[in-house]
Amino acid sequence: MRQIVADLHAELVRYNLVVWTAGNVSGRIPGEDLFVIKPSGVSYDELTPENMVVCDLDGNLVEGEHAPSSDTAAHAYVYRNMPEVGGVVHTHSTYASAWAARGEAIPCVLTAMADEFGGEIPIGPFALIGDDSIGQGIVETLKGHRSKAVLMQNHGVFSIGKDAKSAVKAAVMCEDVARTVHVARQLGEPLPIPQDDIDRLYDRYQNVYGQRSPR
Amino acid sequence: MRQIVADLHAELVRYNLVVWTAGNVSGRIPGEDLFVIKPSGVSYDELTPENMVVCDLDGNLVEGEHAPSSDTAAHAYVYRNMPEVGGVVHTHSTYASAWAARGEAIPCVLTAMADEFGGEIPIGPFALIGDDSIGQGIVETLKGHRSKAVLMQNHGVFSIGKDAKSAVKAAVMCEDVARTVHVARQLGEPLPIPQDDIDRLYDRYQNVYGQRSPR
Amino acid sequence: MRQIVADLHAELVRYNLVVWTAGNVSGRIPGEDLFVIKPSGVSYDELTPENMVVCDLDGNLVEGEHAPSSDTAAHAYVYRNMPEVGGVVHTHSTYASAWAARGEAIPCVLTAMADEFGGEIPIGPFALIGDDSIGQGIVETLKGHRSKAVLMQNHGVFSIGKDAKSAVKAAVMCEDVARTVHVARQLGEPLPIPQDDIDRLYDRYQNVYGQRSPR
Amino acid sequence: MRQIVADLHAELVRYNLVVWTAGNVSGRIPGEDLFVIKPSGVSYDELTPENMVVCDLDGNLVEGEHAPSSDTAAHAYVYRNMPEVGGVVHTHSTYASAWAARGEAIPCVLTAMADEFGGEIPIGPFALIGDDSIGQGIVETLKGHRSKAVLMQNHGVFSIGKDAKSAVKAAVMCEDVARTVHVARQLGEPLPIPQDDIDRLYDRYQNVYGQRSPR
Repeated sequence: MRQIVADLHAELVRYNLVVWTAGNVSGRIPGEDLFVIKPSGVSYDELTPENMVVCDLDGNLVEGEHAPSSDTAAHAYVYRNMPEVGGVVHTHSTYASAWAARGEAIPCVLTAMADEFGGEIPIGPFALIGDDSIGQGIVETLKGHRSKAVLMQNHGVFSIGKDAKSAVKAAVMCEDVARTVHVARQLGEPLPIPQDDIDRLYDRYQNVYGQRSPR
Repeated sequence: MRQIVADLHAELVRYNLVVWTAGNVSGRIPGEDLFVIKPSGVSYDELTPENMVVCDLDGNLVEGEHAPSSDTAAHAYVYRNMPEVGGVVHTHSTYASAWAARGEAIPCVLTAMADEFGGEIPIGPFALIGDDSIGQGIVETLKGHRSKAVLMQNHGVFSIGKDAKSAVKAAVMCEDVARTVHVARQLGEPLPIPQDDIDRLYDRYQNVYGQRSPR
Repeated sequence: MRQIVADLHAELVRYNLVVWTAGNVSGRIPGEDLFVIKPSGVSYDELTPENMVVCDLDGNLVEGEHAPSSDTAAHAYVYRNMPEVGGVVHTHSTYASAWAARGEAIPCVLTAMADEFGGEIPIGPFALIGDDSIGQGIVETLKGHRSKAVLMQNHGVFSIGKDAKSAVKAAVMCEDVARTVHVARQLGEPLPIPQDDIDRLYDRYQNVYGQRSPR
Repeated sequence: MRQIVADLHAELVRYNLVVWTAGNVSGRIPGEDLFVIKPSGVSYDELTPENMVVCDLDGNLVEGEHAPSSDTAAHAYVYRNMPEVGGVVHTHSTYASAWAARGEAIPCVLTAMADEFGGEIPIGPFALIGDDSIGQGIVETLKGHRSKAVLMQNHGVFSIGKDAKSAVKAAVMCEDVARTVHVARQLGEPLPIPQDDIDRLYDRYQNVYGQRSPR
């Protein structure tokens, strides 16, 4: 799990979702009330399985020589309150954060967005770091929502998934559709996709797909 | 052909036309009713000649250990109905998909666009995955049209060519002109190119060029 | 220090803050009235500890075979007048320079901006190269301001820090927030963050953070 | 000279000025009525000193196994009519080509632009490939103009320099300022730089600079 989480940070770098040390990936350890997360203040080039840290579901450091990411409390809150979640990702990726700065959800005007998110990507509340506010905002917004990503107002993106890789995929796709819909909107209004077509696309992608092999 | 198709996916990555596993290249096997296509759910880093899959013109898997790309039915429909086509590419590249989200054709305001596409890049219909709708939309739009690329509404790009490399070139050029024309339009109206100049440029590029060497 | 300053230029390249030879990093030599800076006219690929140059606080060359960066006078003025500064960075990074071309400060509408800059990133005066005008403009704008970066009108960015790495981080974050706020503003007005929340975020980031480990 | 010209194409790729095989660099052979240019239809990865081609000032192939670039006539016309020019570069770089598509010169609102171009980057006429029209348009626009780059309407950029490297630098800087001024204009009007300040900056950069070392 340390290896998986360390390696997945390279995807954040590859897709330009992060600068300096500003984003992080975590993954729940199957069968235990623990998760692996990025250490604070270590650059992406220097991440190794060894310097990843392990925390319990209250965000306390259980194993590791570095302090855990400053966003650990938000990750922990999600794991505590959404048992189906196996991975969490946080980034300040440019286009998604721009929608977040306006407090505007991304409308579902692309089939790839219907596939992955099943509709719009919603806005979560403005929340300060330091207590459970961010975690609560994430959970309240995503519980019962199809979307695996939430745009936290004036802040950035949190994405979730059944495992860490799935959460990273959601973070990558979120920035990709945030950018494409932004660009589309710059020169006019994108055409809406009818709700029942969104439903069909989402259903097919989650089910037909799942029965064969991951895309 | 497996080697060629596997290698061409690297061009999609190099020109930032794809994220995660969302685009695909296929190439018709000369002299046979078969084509080689990307396997589903395999990342671009892991593509090898060996894990490419071979399908017949109905999209059925003929050879390979992975399921074929989820867009295989659309590729197959094109090969079945456009015998002159030897390669097909599909991407969700950002700028082209943004035009597609608005359902707006890209006007021909660049000489490079006249050279490669001979005029505007047209919009194809909104079509759901799962049957021949996407393939039909591609073929109906591109049959008898100079353009080697079509913007499928709310979806992305399909491009065609005499072989896989030519279809990849069209996909690369489509995103390049989609971006440049978008940027031009952000601050005003691009100047039109007279139709007979477009015709001269296209004719020269397709013919004079062809008699010497590929550009 | 030569090694550190030489290596930090690679971060300017990595984050696309510079083209050709247009940006530079310097670092004060602890305990001495000297600083290390990029040589003029040497490309980023060719920077080594050996070809870095050492200047005194009047910007005179003290050690090195190349002429110092043409921006040396501005760096020297900052070191002379802000003893707490241990590193200075100058770039023409795209989005920050675009705000500078309009003479417009970047409003603080992102929590990452409150963390790093404690408020808006201010505009400095239009100043010509050749005397102390640029240095004076930087110091007058940043003295007593929380921001570690200033947008020099019609020119580009100067950033400062307690050491060269911290100044590079400020240059990287400045371009990142300049881009995100620009993108946000393209489609409407970003939501403001209340001043006391900005204060809380800044205080926490500078203090709580500092007591544990650098982020 | 073959080595220099071959290597300089890597700068076009590094700064994202070209896609596929669409841009080219040439360099005059000192003391001879000959120049080295990119072969047609060879990808940037495959350029070597050996496959560069040599042409005379009428654009005829003198040495080489490949056909010369399809833009050779324009390069040759420039060398024939501007004896002070030692290098020519052509690209379809995105932002510069967007200004060209609108037929709009780039106003000089950045000090880096005053340094390198001494004022606006002008628009050249719409001209078709196939005779001397493009070359004439370049020469008529740039003769007696400070700018080393011209935006050929609906087409792209041609830049010149005392040698090939200097022309490549102009192409890189042209795209950089085209992008920054575009971004600035998206959210309002950039502040003008007074003409006499532009003159001072240009004079200093061309003269003071030249007496020390190239930047």
